[in-house]
Amino acid sequence: MKTVNVGIIGLGNVGKAVLEAILANGELIAKRAGVALAVKGVCDVDENALAAVDEKKCPVKTASADDLIGDETIDVIVELIGGISPAKEIILKALKNKKHVVTANKALLSQHGKEILKAAAENGVSVNFEASVGGAIPVIRALRESFIGNNFAVVYGILNGTTNFILTTMARTGCTFDEALVIAQAKGVAERNPELDISGKDSAHKLAILALLGFGVHVAPDDIFTEGISGIGPQDIEYASRWGYSIKLLAIAKDTPGGLQLRVHPTLLPSAHLLSDVRDVDNAIFLKGDLVGESLLSGKGAGGRPTSSSVIGDIVDIAARIAFSGSADGKPRNFEYAPDRKLSRIESLNMSYYLRFSVIDKPGVLAGISSVLAENNISIASVTQDERKEGETVPVMILTHEAEEGSLRKAIEKINKLDFISDRTVVIRMEEEV
Amino acid sequence: MKTVNVGIIGLGNVGKAVLEAILANGELIAKRAGVALAVKGVCDVDENALAAVDEKKCPVKTASADDLIGDETIDVIVELIGGISPAKEIILKALKNKKHVVTANKALLSQHGKEILKAAAENGVSVNFEASVGGAIPVIRALRESFIGNNFAVVYGILNGTTNFILTTMARTGCTFDEALVIAQAKGVAERNPELDISGKDSAHKLAILALLGFGVHVAPDDIFTEGISGIGPQDIEYASRWGYSIKLLAIAKDTPGGLQLRVHPTLLPSAHLLSDVRDVDNAIFLKGDLVGESLLSGKGAGGRPTSSSVIGDIVDIAARIAFSGSADGKPRNFEYAPDRKLSRIESLNMSYYLRFSVIDKPGVLAGISSVLAENNISIASVTQDERKEGETVPVMILTHEAEEGSLRKAIEKINKLDFISDRTVVIRMEEEV
Repeated sequence: MKTVNVGIIGLGNVGKAVLEAILANGELIAKRAGVALAVKGVCDVDENALAAVDEKKCPVKTASADDLIGDETIDVIVELIGGISPAKEIILKALKNKKHVVTANKALLSQHGKEILKAAAENGVSVNFEASVGGAIPVIRALRESFIGNNFAVVYGILNGTTNFILTTMARTGCTFDEALVIAQAKGVAERNPELDISGKDSAHKLAILALLGFGVHVAPDDIFTEGISGIGPQDIEYASRWGYSIKLLAIAKDTPGGLQLRVHPTLLPSAHLLSDVRDVDNAIFLKGDLVGESLLSGKGAGGRPTSSSVIGDIVDIAARIAFSGSADGKPRNFEYAPDRKLSRIESLNMSYYLRFSVIDKPGVLAGISSVLAENNISIASVTQDERKEGETVPVMILTHEAEEGSLRKAIEKINKLDFISDRTVVIRMEEEV
Repeated sequence: MKTVNVGIIGLGNVGKAVLEAILANGELIAKRAGVALAVKGVCDVDENALAAVDEKKCPVKTASADDLIGDETIDVIVELIGGISPAKEIILKALKNKKHVVTANKALLSQHGKEILKAAAENGVSVNFEASVGGAIPVIRALRESFIGNNFAVVYGILNGTTNFILTTMARTGCTFDEALVIAQAKGVAERNPELDISGKDSAHKLAILALLGFGVHVAPDDIFTEGISGIGPQDIEYASRWGYSIKLLAIAKDTPGGLQLRVHPTLLPSAHLLSDVRDVDNAIFLKGDLVGESLLSGKGAGGRPTSSSVIGDIVDIAARIAFSGSADGKPRNFEYAPDRKLSRIESLNMSYYLRFSVIDKPGVLAGISSVLAENNISIASVTQDERKEGETVPVMILTHEAEEGSLRKAIEKINKLDFISDRTVVIRMEEEV
């Protein structure tokens, strides 16, 4: 049986898990695939991480990526250090050396995917990146291969475990965002600096990758409208729930006559929707295609072992092609197949909204708010104001009918300046026909 | 751009949908894949089906499969006639002629998969069969490729849309099995002769295929314990629901120290389980692997267009390898990788059970039942008897703790002979730790 040699760069959580899984399940993998994997070398700047690796099972242990990239016996470089630099330089150098690359690096792919995929094509090698979106969930392969015959109408993703955990915790306990964040940090589910996750940026990185696969365009994550979850209060979750909605941080790609919408924001979703049942750190992708209809893929979106599952699937994909076709070529590969696709600007979208106004209660408050909404062609579907304490701050919740985002923003800006408004208005977009 | 020629045999629902999808989305597919698909020929014994196909888009229209199998310009034969004969002969002949084959034929693969996959390997060509299980759901590719690094602990499938529709309808409306079947037939969701579906046999066919991919053994569907849903009454669904369970027809593969369990039967599942939310004709596969953890794939399990999505994914998989590696080889291919895996006999399993006794109510009934259960080492977790009409037939529902299937069967056989039992006892297995 042919053996394909692998070099792992980065021995963090995922790198260690990949090494362990290949050692523990290597025999099973070889039996199934008909080709064996061997970890020829590992690379990390942390001496302790290297020292923990058994030399008998992995001969090369090095702090220099060049030792693996330059090793002629290594066929596949697995990049698991994350971030832009030096991951980008390492991958480009590996590709130039005709090494196939497997990576989980969503930040890098979303920002420099074009350059990396071009370098792979020029050098006749593959870059596989299943683990970059949705951890263990096989969404990249589904979009790129299984569903290749489909025009997609929408792709909705819960792509960030930290924020889904925080929202689920708030819904379950009624606690505030800050409290849920502390719980998430205590459980190791949120980083000490959770900004990348809670701002929605991590989801935007992943959405950019899904947009490339599902819609054929490279879009810079900075060009994706992105709003995080820190403005969500427990009362929003409670009122949404009473109205029959959950609140999820969704990454949305939607093909419309006006162009492709790409956006990441907290979203009111019908409680009966399958995505509303995705709890805690789980991730899920729900999509609609003209052939498949509706489909849901869900599972573990992060963590060493789940991510290693996808990394190993990617390695075997390359290894089997090396072993049986003498080349690692042979997959659908035109990533940027619709470079001229028009993107929609968020301001031009028509959506329904959940609005929470913080008002100092007095007669005329609702009239004041609703007249500004009416001026901007925004019609009200429901209003709720439970608490009434004249002269004190109370919340007023409104669900609107479909309105243009640009008009809504104008209305909210004006309303925020009214004298009885005591705090910034919370605006959450709704997706009703998912 | 290279064009790969396809011959479609069978112009039923799925065949027509595949033809239409290639014609409608062919440009998109070619852009994504970097290789074009052309339908060179179609074959059907129905003249009207052939007449409906536009000759300009598909030059060969024939009633003889040999015309396509013998066509040197055709690379891929798509078999969509279903059933054993003549599908088997056609596929074997195509493979011998070095044609790659794509099929959705679960009956054939589950019963003659060994012979077919062997013939493919001997002739150096591929057989792809994503559409044979779960329609549009990419479960074959997930098990064979994405999750290849995993030892699977369990695979649970809702693999039959007809039975899921019937059970969902019974749960929603409270109607009987017979009434739900009539509704399903009226909607075209059940065949006029629904035996293959409602008996669980169709699910067993699909489970045999999943067992091959996930556990490496060829198991004949007849060797899979299979029980259908016709014995389920509306009161079972209602009581299960009160106790916090749904009832689903599950296809179960479970790896245990005692061997691999393969079984198809109605199952009480916790209502909070993701599979409990799979409604109507939808299908889903839930699995646990040592790396992925828990994962769910769900979507449309049948129908022309959804099935065509998987068929096209399979065709492109082959076409891309032909176009770019000069060979269609290069995938993990050792299907029967654990031929000696031990199978568990159903009688030796330990499970919890839901039991519904039909009793003629009189004092001592519960004592009579419970003493027979106790004699057979079956302990009771809950009992419910709502209606009390002395001298009339009423239901008594019992949930048991874990008990051995063999002992349970003995107990039920004995109880069924007690003088106050007026009808066969309904036994439904439970899966609590899914």
